[in-house]
Amino acid sequence: MKIAVDAMGSDNRPAPDVAGAVLAARELGAAMLLVGDESVIRRELAAHNTSGLRLDVVHTAEAVDMTDKPSVVGKEKPNSSMHVGMSLVKNGDASAFVTMGNTGAALAIATLYTLRRIPGIKRPALGQVVRIKGGNVFLVDIGANADSKPEWMVQFAVMGKVYAERVLHIVEPRVALLSNGEEEGKGNQLIRETSALLHQLPINYVGNVEPKDVLDGKTDIVVADGFVGNIAVKTFEASGRFLGGLIRDELKRDVFSMLGGLLARPALRRVYEQVDPFEVGGALLLGVNGVVIVGHGRSNARAVKNAIRQAHQAVTGQIVQSIQSGVEHPLAE
Amino acid sequence: MKIAVDAMGSDNRPAPDVAGAVLAARELGAAMLLVGDESVIRRELAAHNTSGLRLDVVHTAEAVDMTDKPSVVGKEKPNSSMHVGMSLVKNGDASAFVTMGNTGAALAIATLYTLRRIPGIKRPALGQVVRIKGGNVFLVDIGANADSKPEWMVQFAVMGKVYAERVLHIVEPRVALLSNGEEEGKGNQLIRETSALLHQLPINYVGNVEPKDVLDGKTDIVVADGFVGNIAVKTFEASGRFLGGLIRDELKRDVFSMLGGLLARPALRRVYEQVDPFEVGGALLLGVNGVVIVGHGRSNARAVKNAIRQAHQAVTGQIVQSIQSGVEHPLAE
Repeated sequence: MKIAVDAMGSDNRPAPDVAGAVLAARELGAAMLLVGDESVIRRELAAHNTSGLRLDVVHTAEAVDMTDKPSVVGKEKPNSSMHVGMSLVKNGDASAFVTMGNTGAALAIATLYTLRRIPGIKRPALGQVVRIKGGNVFLVDIGANADSKPEWMVQFAVMGKVYAERVLHIVEPRVALLSNGEEEGKGNQLIRETSALLHQLPINYVGNVEPKDVLDGKTDIVVADGFVGNIAVKTFEASGRFLGGLIRDELKRDVFSMLGGLLARPALRRVYEQVDPFEVGGALLLGVNGVVIVGHGRSNARAVKNAIRQAHQAVTGQIVQSIQSGVEHPLAE
Repeated sequence: MKIAVDAMGSDNRPAPDVAGAVLAARELGAAMLLVGDESVIRRELAAHNTSGLRLDVVHTAEAVDMTDKPSVVGKEKPNSSMHVGMSLVKNGDASAFVTMGNTGAALAIATLYTLRRIPGIKRPALGQVVRIKGGNVFLVDIGANADSKPEWMVQFAVMGKVYAERVLHIVEPRVALLSNGEEEGKGNQLIRETSALLHQLPINYVGNVEPKDVLDGKTDIVVADGFVGNIAVKTFEASGRFLGGLIRDELKRDVFSMLGGLLARPALRRVYEQVDPFEVGGALLLGVNGVVIVGHGRSNARAVKNAIRQAHQAVTGQIVQSIQSGVEHPLAE
């Protein structure tokens, strides 16, 4: 398998991107195609031991910036590493594309210029794995579509089901709608209309869930409108950082707390690792005709490596093909 | 000042409700009207030292249950403690009503049967104070209105401003919209339309905020649709409990962690106190013609007391009168 990696994606490009690709090449034994400015990439690669690893470079003169407007960057920078990397997937020269760059740009370039949608998919969506106690939850959509329609939400559910089955290896995964109350009939109009449609599908639809239910593991897939899903994921992440900050401050207040914090450091470290979003990889661009993972701009090499591993799993799990047949036959089981 | 307190509100009624009222009577020096089954309340009061406190009982035969449907309970239980308590406020026999009961029922009984809306208010909303490092943020709406309209959101902003000024004592409070990105133009259709309207008001409108910005103190008032605000608040609270659970588990894993946890316990306790929702009181029913606070069903006596204190502050700050003049003259300063 060959995975195209955007060398010009992260905020600190190309160091974490290239280092992550080197780590992934070693861990996965797969070939990496580093896409970006060749001389810059070669200089970066020289700092790594790459003997025995399959690492190639595909030169591009341009790169998408975080400040680039998604609506115009596809047209204005046709030779960006993002554009070229996705074209490699489209043309069969790579099995997946991984970038730590501008999410909106990735969505627009994939949907409108390169891979395009899987036939039958109304709107691509962003999916993200959140690790909870004893397992994973898959959230979709976490930000591609504000103002979703019920029929799109149903497809998010189908795509989430495919990911949960084929990558997370969950049998008959439970699907739920993120809502303001568990009872049937709770929610806004979008939730109520989507719920009526989901009841008709042969999926393991368990109804509405509230945020606490998600963290308590009451569902495997959480379906949300992109605006709501984005705010939920960002609130979860921001809450973790907020509480972490409060704990750090309070542990510095006196000598007993400092000593306690020192002794408890490995335990607190383990907590941090359990919620660290860099561990799970990036967001998955679901519904486009190819595997694309978009990681966080602040990613370090480990986060890039994990995003590439996630791409590898998505390719192995044949999620694009499975989504296509899931959308073609949503009522068949 | 006399405050009517629903003795039949909380999950463990009437013990926390009555005990909270006793605490509040002592702390605030105000009179409490305990509303509910008189014999039950008298028996509960007998367990407290109430000498010198102004505590009266208003007997009602019925009580709203958490399972009661908000849409019908106003008609079906016209003599509930909630109904009677709000009527006391309407008739001027009490300055505010505080309940730990069914939020939807409180909203319906206040809006449709007793206090009704402040003239000019399109939709009452639920507001909640969230404590952040070094201050408070006021969120509105946290759940009264799913599928809000831009004109309602503008009124939520005006009501939030009144609360921030008159109760939290913030001068020229900053107002922001909760959104999926900070940049102007981000958000769903509701956010974009509301933003255009807020720009025209003489308020300190600072644009969009993401969840992390809220916790970083970049605004004083966060305006959201009730569905989105509800999910954001619930995600924040659930994340805290989730992380607290992980920390507790990890601190039990080995003897060093246990010792560390023991030494750090006062520090972790201080963190908990900073995020404990019971400290701030309850949710405020904004836009009805009277002060109503709805606390959590799981409230203990301290939470009930704090909710009563919050009601006392809202009355002292004359928020109902201020909302009325704010809505009448939204463009005057």
